[in-house]
Amino acid sequence: MSSALKIMLLILVLLSLHTLSLASSHQHHPLDPLTRSEFTLVRTIVQKSYPRSIHNLTFQYVGLDEPDKPRVLAWLSNPASKPPPRRAFVITRLSKKSHEIVVDLSTRLIVSDVVYDGYGYPLLTSDEQIAAITLPQTYEPFIESVKKRGLNLSDVVCSTFTVGWFGEVKISARVLKLLCFYTDHGTVNLYVRPVEGITLVVDLDEMKIVEYYDRFRVPVPKAEGTEYRASKMKPPFGPHLNGAAFLQPDGPGFNIDGHTVSWANWVFHVGYDVRAGPIISTASIYDLDKQTHRRVLYRGFISELFVPYMDPTEEWYYKTFFDSGEFGFGQSAVSLEPFADCPSNAEFLDAYYAGADGLPVKISNAFCIFERYAGNIMWRHTELEIPNEVIREVRPEVTLVVRMVATVGNYDYILDWEFKPSGSIKFGVGLTGVLEVKGVTYTHADHIKEDVYGTLLADNTIGVYHDHFLTYYLDLDVDGEPNSFIKKKLEKIQVIDPHSSPRKSYWTTVSETAKTESDARVQLGLMQSELTVVNTNKKTKLGNDVGYRLIPGSASHPLLSYDDYPQIRGAFTNNDVWVTPYNKSEKWAGGLYVDQSHGDDTLATWSLRNRDIENKDIVLWYTIGFHHVPCQEDFPVMPTLSAGFELRPTNFFESNPVLKTKAPKHVDWSNCSTTTHP
Amino acid sequence: MSSALKIMLLILVLLSLHTLSLASSHQHHPLDPLTRSEFTLVRTIVQKSYPRSIHNLTFQYVGLDEPDKPRVLAWLSNPASKPPPRRAFVITRLSKKSHEIVVDLSTRLIVSDVVYDGYGYPLLTSDEQIAAITLPQTYEPFIESVKKRGLNLSDVVCSTFTVGWFGEVKISARVLKLLCFYTDHGTVNLYVRPVEGITLVVDLDEMKIVEYYDRFRVPVPKAEGTEYRASKMKPPFGPHLNGAAFLQPDGPGFNIDGHTVSWANWVFHVGYDVRAGPIISTASIYDLDKQTHRRVLYRGFISELFVPYMDPTEEWYYKTFFDSGEFGFGQSAVSLEPFADCPSNAEFLDAYYAGADGLPVKISNAFCIFERYAGNIMWRHTELEIPNEVIREVRPEVTLVVRMVATVGNYDYILDWEFKPSGSIKFGVGLTGVLEVKGVTYTHADHIKEDVYGTLLADNTIGVYHDHFLTYYLDLDVDGEPNSFIKKKLEKIQVIDPHSSPRKSYWTTVSETAKTESDARVQLGLMQSELTVVNTNKKTKLGNDVGYRLIPGSASHPLLSYDDYPQIRGAFTNNDVWVTPYNKSEKWAGGLYVDQSHGDDTLATWSLRNRDIENKDIVLWYTIGFHHVPCQEDFPVMPTLSAGFELRPTNFFESNPVLKTKAPKHVDWSNCSTTTHP
Repeated sequence: MSSALKIMLLILVLLSLHTLSLASSHQHHPLDPLTRSEFTLVRTIVQKSYPRSIHNLTFQYVGLDEPDKPRVLAWLSNPASKPPPRRAFVITRLSKKSHEIVVDLSTRLIVSDVVYDGYGYPLLTSDEQIAAITLPQTYEPFIESVKKRGLNLSDVVCSTFTVGWFGEVKISARVLKLLCFYTDHGTVNLYVRPVEGITLVVDLDEMKIVEYYDRFRVPVPKAEGTEYRASKMKPPFGPHLNGAAFLQPDGPGFNIDGHTVSWANWVFHVGYDVRAGPIISTASIYDLDKQTHRRVLYRGFISELFVPYMDPTEEWYYKTFFDSGEFGFGQSAVSLEPFADCPSNAEFLDAYYAGADGLPVKISNAFCIFERYAGNIMWRHTELEIPNEVIREVRPEVTLVVRMVATVGNYDYILDWEFKPSGSIKFGVGLTGVLEVKGVTYTHADHIKEDVYGTLLADNTIGVYHDHFLTYYLDLDVDGEPNSFIKKKLEKIQVIDPHSSPRKSYWTTVSETAKTESDARVQLGLMQSELTVVNTNKKTKLGNDVGYRLIPGSASHPLLSYDDYPQIRGAFTNNDVWVTPYNKSEKWAGGLYVDQSHGDDTLATWSLRNRDIENKDIVLWYTIGFHHVPCQEDFPVMPTLSAGFELRPTNFFESNPVLKTKAPKHVDWSNCSTTTHP
Repeated sequence: MSSALKIMLLILVLLSLHTLSLASSHQHHPLDPLTRSEFTLVRTIVQKSYPRSIHNLTFQYVGLDEPDKPRVLAWLSNPASKPPPRRAFVITRLSKKSHEIVVDLSTRLIVSDVVYDGYGYPLLTSDEQIAAITLPQTYEPFIESVKKRGLNLSDVVCSTFTVGWFGEVKISARVLKLLCFYTDHGTVNLYVRPVEGITLVVDLDEMKIVEYYDRFRVPVPKAEGTEYRASKMKPPFGPHLNGAAFLQPDGPGFNIDGHTVSWANWVFHVGYDVRAGPIISTASIYDLDKQTHRRVLYRGFISELFVPYMDPTEEWYYKTFFDSGEFGFGQSAVSLEPFADCPSNAEFLDAYYAGADGLPVKISNAFCIFERYAGNIMWRHTELEIPNEVIREVRPEVTLVVRMVATVGNYDYILDWEFKPSGSIKFGVGLTGVLEVKGVTYTHADHIKEDVYGTLLADNTIGVYHDHFLTYYLDLDVDGEPNSFIKKKLEKIQVIDPHSSPRKSYWTTVSETAKTESDARVQLGLMQSELTVVNTNKKTKLGNDVGYRLIPGSASHPLLSYDDYPQIRGAFTNNDVWVTPYNKSEKWAGGLYVDQSHGDDTLATWSLRNRDIENKDIVLWYTIGFHHVPCQEDFPVMPTLSAGFELRPTNFFESNPVLKTKAPKHVDWSNCSTTTHP
């Protein structure tokens, strides 16, 4: 061996040691997302096994291959013990095939590599979408269409739309559609200025335009009134809002160690996945009474977001998006703006995902974490009935918020996890951003005599009706894995014997334990019941089952026919609540391959097995829905529409867990000088 | 005339002038609540007309006699014009009769005085309740019962409970029941320590005990674990929450002139009534586009709060309270604690009501008003599709909250009105305080084999199932009085011709205008629709009806039989939504006289007339409900359970009304020294 070669080898060994040490220094928790260096390592290992295809192989999904739950729990109970093997799950495209590859990061070996031959395609990468939208600029028929419309090619911007599935039996190519928008006069709000009539179909594996349609022309909605950048707007401005400053003299009350957050009585792990976005894991709450942390949630994330539009016409019918499985909530995370997206006391975390070439891509400030002092009251009581004494005890509320914003093209989804010292976890969803609109000839509602499938929002602009269904995966482990789903039904009791009571009726609770999955399917609405996940093996001292209950948001059910293709693919929204036995492979409510899926791998199909769920490790799936009838206020950018739900302890604690919380100190200023920033 | 007499007369004239000027100097707005001096004046005038009964006459209700709406609107459009006559509406008890008296404050004349001869009794005064609860202390049979139980008489505290109506045909006396509680060992959480078995009935007009029952004995729940005062609790304390300081360098962004609050684009009036509590009136929002204030809400308040308990047994069946009409939400308002009930940037308002003797009683800090900086996002968008440009525009949310807390005995209701610059009004309700519990022999759930109508919360302590239904009166005047109620039903359309679309279904909206009251009755649940109040006489430039829509909270319907007496009295909760034509006399959903009412003067009975409501001045009634299944966490004091709903503009504005809002300045510190207060 030449000494040059020896030196080369030594450098390689050192380099790899360095990479390893980087990886392990970040590996605080077995559920930590893959690190920057781990992504690089995965890429190296995968590319090494396809040496002749390095330039054709694309990384569609790279994420943590979730370690087996017992191994994670074992590590948690003894963090000094050997962590579970660190593995990555990869989906690549190569030669028009999807490969599922599991990479072991310690041994640097490929554990498995199988070609997927079912329906559907993996997550779209940002890179291939960017590549696709540049294709029209050099596509002659498109250039011609633009010219015919009297538009400037350089002001036309195209965007990508997944095509769905509508009963085709033959496996179709991995295609997406492009629709284009106009940005003349320096406008940037492209989504509200559609160039209607033109549809391009791009084969992503070939990266070329395979179909082209120019069907009709309607006016492009005007530039005027579409601006939303403060720097480009003219007075008058308003309404005026006063600035405020916020100071925590003792600093923030939370601590972030790697991805583990400790705050008040909570400890939990904030993960990230290119598909799911935020993942909260191993959340436990300290019980002052029992002087120990108690487990609440093993893992929770938004499993899918189904967004069907309600226009059945040729140009729009296919718009039935699965934002998580097609576009990736994590991939769509945007950098949060300090003092605006999050308050001044927020701390930020970056996120990394693998680009199509496998190299890590950084999203700065993808998460923020902050204590919320919203002026709410945690609990209070004024007692005036004790003679000669006025008692007033009030504890102001402080909560901890973990936030990510996913901007999927036009829409911005604000995703909040809010932890309360009382044991509640509140899930907030905010919808803002820009509507998807359709260009029409109309400029006044009175002229519209047909169904235009939406609301006239501006001249030539229809905001099309649509839904948003966010399906949460909530693997609750209330005081341990074996949990049961109990519906406490509120039932009216008629008083039969008029002598027994002057009342004719009252209600009581009738508990129904769901034995199998079918027992646990719930459509919320007029049914009055408390939905609880309890651990029947653990009781309070008084003998009540320890549990958490779901406080749902306002119910919005899907309105599509069950046999309609989009609804078959989105069948996981047919019920508001489902419960399944824990199964590591059942993570994605719409299936692992959602793009062009046939709906054969959804929560609804898994659940047909009707498995036992009583006193098992179970997963609660809850869908929060919005029917969106757009209104003029939503134009040209929407004021946030918020909704949410809550998981709340119910007989989990022996008594009020915040009874002995002291009100946080309040702080006065003296000798303060402040500077303001516009 | 002697000079002494002349001087006396002069003094009287000066005194009365002084009183008048005091009254008029506060009389900024015709809907201002009665002032301190006006209460005194009302008392003087009423007592003068009953010279021989001054000491027997009690003031059960004194409030503003609401001026005619056209007069108020005329004054609003020209505040320099003569305001409508200032009048008080008074209900007195005298010789076992309820008198309805209208007093004109300018002429100092009684305009009308009629004796009410229907069912039901007026608001209970605090004074008569305080008088009633002292009666048992000297009532021999009671003293004997206490002694037999081995309890200390001086540690027994009684409380008042309205008796309801259960089909009795004969008009019963004006009575209430007393139940008693134990407070030995210096405990103050009386409600969780009931002395079961003893019921006293007090005739309020006679102010004496008229019936007495000692039926059975069960152990008084123990003192241990009932404490909620921080000063009396022992370590360990927790969870720990860090303090925070909040500074608005430019001061608060709102202005309070009398009772009129101006903030951002909103102007509204904060009133107070001894029965309703907070009343928000004449709320208008500035339209930047039209450069004018536009009317939204003429008057809104909580009309009634129905709280039926679900225990049909002798000791509990009658507990079906109407907290507003029986006890008075305003009378139950408590002084808010700065830095705890409201944040440091809050401003406070006092409230006055008339005591039983007619003299004004002050509630300091009954309201707080503050800007909420909760870390939310008003709107945002990140745009990544414009070549070579990253656009990010974010506007943080600031809202204005008006808060009152009503403590009706054990329960504390946090009532928030939240105004958003985007035009939304959010209504928040927080339930906290102490549960109403029943003493039982049980100390473990396993021993319970019968229905105990609640949850075992502590040894010998059942938290009884109950509901809370808050019915809001919302006199919306969207761009003027003539409004219509339109249900935009979301209806599924089946695609009949498979060649017309690859889709099989979609939904569209079908608008149904409610012609009469019966068309407007809505039970929320599985029905998918947008409920809007629109002004069909005003259109946007694009031709859409200007309106506001109701975004309801989670639906909770009454479960009692419609023919059960409490539900007949609470029949206004039979629908979640009602719409009535505006009628000045239809304010109280449960009737003007709710105590022992027979349900013949409720929203449900008025609405039987099925009046026209299309393009009329209409009132929207919305009920937000809670079914409360108590849990151990609710003991000994409940963490706040929150719910709410929203009124949101829909095609009210031509476009997003906060598009041109600049982000409030953010503020940095330098050279700050702070002091903290425990």
